[in-house]
Amino acid sequence: MRVVIWGQLSQTERKLVLARSQASDDEALIRQVKEIIANVRQNGDKALLEYAAKFDGAKLDCLLVSEDEYKAIESLSNDEKQAILTAIDNIRHYHNISCPKSFEFERNGAKLGKLYRPIEKVGLYIPGGTAPLVSTLLMLAIPATIAGCETKVLVTPPGKNGLVNPAILFAAKACGIDAIYKAGGAQAVAALAFGTESIPKVYKIFGPGNKYVTEAKIQVSQTHNGAALDMPAGPSEVLVIADDKANPVFVASDLLAQAEHDVAAQVILLTTSTELANKVHQEVERQTAYLSRKEIIKQSLAKSAVIIAKDLAEAFVISNQYAPEHLILQIANAEDYLPQVINAGSVFVGEWTPESVGDYASGTNHVLPTYGYAQMYSGLDVIAFMKAISFQNLSASGIKTLGPVVETLADLEGLDAHKNAVTVRLQHLNS
Amino acid sequence: MRVVIWGQLSQTERKLVLARSQASDDEALIRQVKEIIANVRQNGDKALLEYAAKFDGAKLDCLLVSEDEYKAIESLSNDEKQAILTAIDNIRHYHNISCPKSFEFERNGAKLGKLYRPIEKVGLYIPGGTAPLVSTLLMLAIPATIAGCETKVLVTPPGKNGLVNPAILFAAKACGIDAIYKAGGAQAVAALAFGTESIPKVYKIFGPGNKYVTEAKIQVSQTHNGAALDMPAGPSEVLVIADDKANPVFVASDLLAQAEHDVAAQVILLTTSTELANKVHQEVERQTAYLSRKEIIKQSLAKSAVIIAKDLAEAFVISNQYAPEHLILQIANAEDYLPQVINAGSVFVGEWTPESVGDYASGTNHVLPTYGYAQMYSGLDVIAFMKAISFQNLSASGIKTLGPVVETLADLEGLDAHKNAVTVRLQHLNS
Repeated sequence: MRVVIWGQLSQTERKLVLARSQASDDEALIRQVKEIIANVRQNGDKALLEYAAKFDGAKLDCLLVSEDEYKAIESLSNDEKQAILTAIDNIRHYHNISCPKSFEFERNGAKLGKLYRPIEKVGLYIPGGTAPLVSTLLMLAIPATIAGCETKVLVTPPGKNGLVNPAILFAAKACGIDAIYKAGGAQAVAALAFGTESIPKVYKIFGPGNKYVTEAKIQVSQTHNGAALDMPAGPSEVLVIADDKANPVFVASDLLAQAEHDVAAQVILLTTSTELANKVHQEVERQTAYLSRKEIIKQSLAKSAVIIAKDLAEAFVISNQYAPEHLILQIANAEDYLPQVINAGSVFVGEWTPESVGDYASGTNHVLPTYGYAQMYSGLDVIAFMKAISFQNLSASGIKTLGPVVETLADLEGLDAHKNAVTVRLQHLNS
Repeated sequence: MRVVIWGQLSQTERKLVLARSQASDDEALIRQVKEIIANVRQNGDKALLEYAAKFDGAKLDCLLVSEDEYKAIESLSNDEKQAILTAIDNIRHYHNISCPKSFEFERNGAKLGKLYRPIEKVGLYIPGGTAPLVSTLLMLAIPATIAGCETKVLVTPPGKNGLVNPAILFAAKACGIDAIYKAGGAQAVAALAFGTESIPKVYKIFGPGNKYVTEAKIQVSQTHNGAALDMPAGPSEVLVIADDKANPVFVASDLLAQAEHDVAAQVILLTTSTELANKVHQEVERQTAYLSRKEIIKQSLAKSAVIIAKDLAEAFVISNQYAPEHLILQIANAEDYLPQVINAGSVFVGEWTPESVGDYASGTNHVLPTYGYAQMYSGLDVIAFMKAISFQNLSASGIKTLGPVVETLADLEGLDAHKNAVTVRLQHLNS
């Protein structure tokens, strides 16, 4: 990790230190995803079964996970089941509180309000790969259930054996997801957006994925009658603000937890103490030695930075400018600094709050804006599975009061049919 | 308006009746917008001044509206000023209530919460054209101000005389917008997304516009370090549900208010009464005769439909399938039917609530999801000008309780650096 002193950098150098790697337009990827989507729209399940064989190495007869396959849940230990259930309980608690509430009020002869309604059909994408991303399932399925989405379609790529990991099956059952389909990649996104014989069409698609999934989500979101996407995606990232009292062992472990995600993961340590920076550096080396994903860690750390700030005020300016997905505060009286956080996905406050607790089980959602999007996007929450409908109901006296105002404004905008809709009513009331 | 009886239509015919016109990829438009954006990024204000001459026919020395120009406000009548102020008061009242609230709670040794923060820099686009869209300004500026956005950059195309309409200037002042820049079209969007010498860069761009504006918003939202957009855009639309007791004069006036917007506007009357449909048809002809925008009205009505439903239950199924931007309920005991509304942008309840009241002054926001997007998007509101940041703060006892759960889940996902971040803390506490 290279070390820079913020005060000694030019404006351009500062921008470079905080810059994310820019994704280049990958024409081949765009074309390939386009072809996959077209094929799924044309051939439905048949295309999905062929892609499962080609990309997942899985020979499937049927996309839907059968009742029989759920027996695999028995292979989980009690500890594993209990950990999943505790995480569900905490995530449910937080998201229940976070659920938006409809309201109505009366004023000047008008009743007005806002109604929150679930999005009727949602798609949940759970990536496959070497390990089952149980936590991602919880982070999507729980808010979808609290929102009250009627149709929740879960897709996940099968393993080579054609099966879905038992932990995913257990978590899905526990979250009230009834139907799991074995499909991954761009083809799964296409199936969710347009439907196939077995997979129902949905209105919005949630969940992370590789570059094919991300590109497919963008393409279907721009297609007439396709499906909206949850938020734009980029590599995961952490920024740790630490002062001279921070424990270098904890700081290093937090940087490493981020670095193991992906070689593209971004890791920044922002500290007021050069001494701490040195100690963290040593700790990173010591801990990396015993971690299994050390090759990934080394590559992501190679691109990462340690920034020395002159004080915490400067540190928060830098952090807000970067707008990190995860912000960890390992500083004295950390909670007092929350008001200074303007741009971040989720904040981990104080020495006993590693990012991992939020990733899995504290209760907050771990699907967060990356890539600087925390400037204007929120992390996932129940509201993302709902939409708001406003309403107004005027009484006769209400239109008498408000009508002339509307007539004047419609006149100003030159829209006389807008005005007329009020005028015919006022005439009726005055006749 | 053609009349169809829902019960006699095939599935395909039903889809066709409710289908929106599909926008075709306009390669020339996409290329032209790309060039405009590149030019503005390269040449800044100079490009904007050239485009103002070329597209708006306005010779400008300076993009910012000068203090002197605000004197034009004096040309407004007291009625006009008062109407704008009343609308502001109502819109502010509704949006204040609608503003999301931060929360926090404690549980199992953890304090968790959610902080709402304004998006720091937002761009507000007010279209130009023959009439000043004062109401659009109110619908963007008021929630931006309630959210607390620090930098609110308002752009609007100048008239041929190089000036901005006095009503826009008055409304902007009254809403607390200090800086108005004379720029329109794709070039204004480019300036907001990337900044120029005089126009500050913003993080998110709000407001309707023509096809160049819409395409530019899409392009900058997909560009690294560009700007997010408010919501996807399509032609405006209304669906009126009316029973046999509805007043045909009112129903016709509501259909016409929508039809005058644009030749692409969509108008649907959904009724349980053939007799009412006939009366509305006559009223549409009678009222059209005295309206000024009759040529636009005739063209948009030509594509519109009257659907006869067998009962109100069927009508609501059809309406929810269509997911109208504006839904008008002219039925007995209209408010009792609100629970049946699943997909709509805003609902106008009962005979005294024409759409125009919501367009201008009832208090709800008139920037609403079109084109079926009400299935998964909300209308504009304060929350669109904010983002939520979650936080968690565990005590030592909190990590002791939750830590083992996180370790188990990290193990399941094969992420041992995630586990390690907990383990080093538990070791510290147990040592």
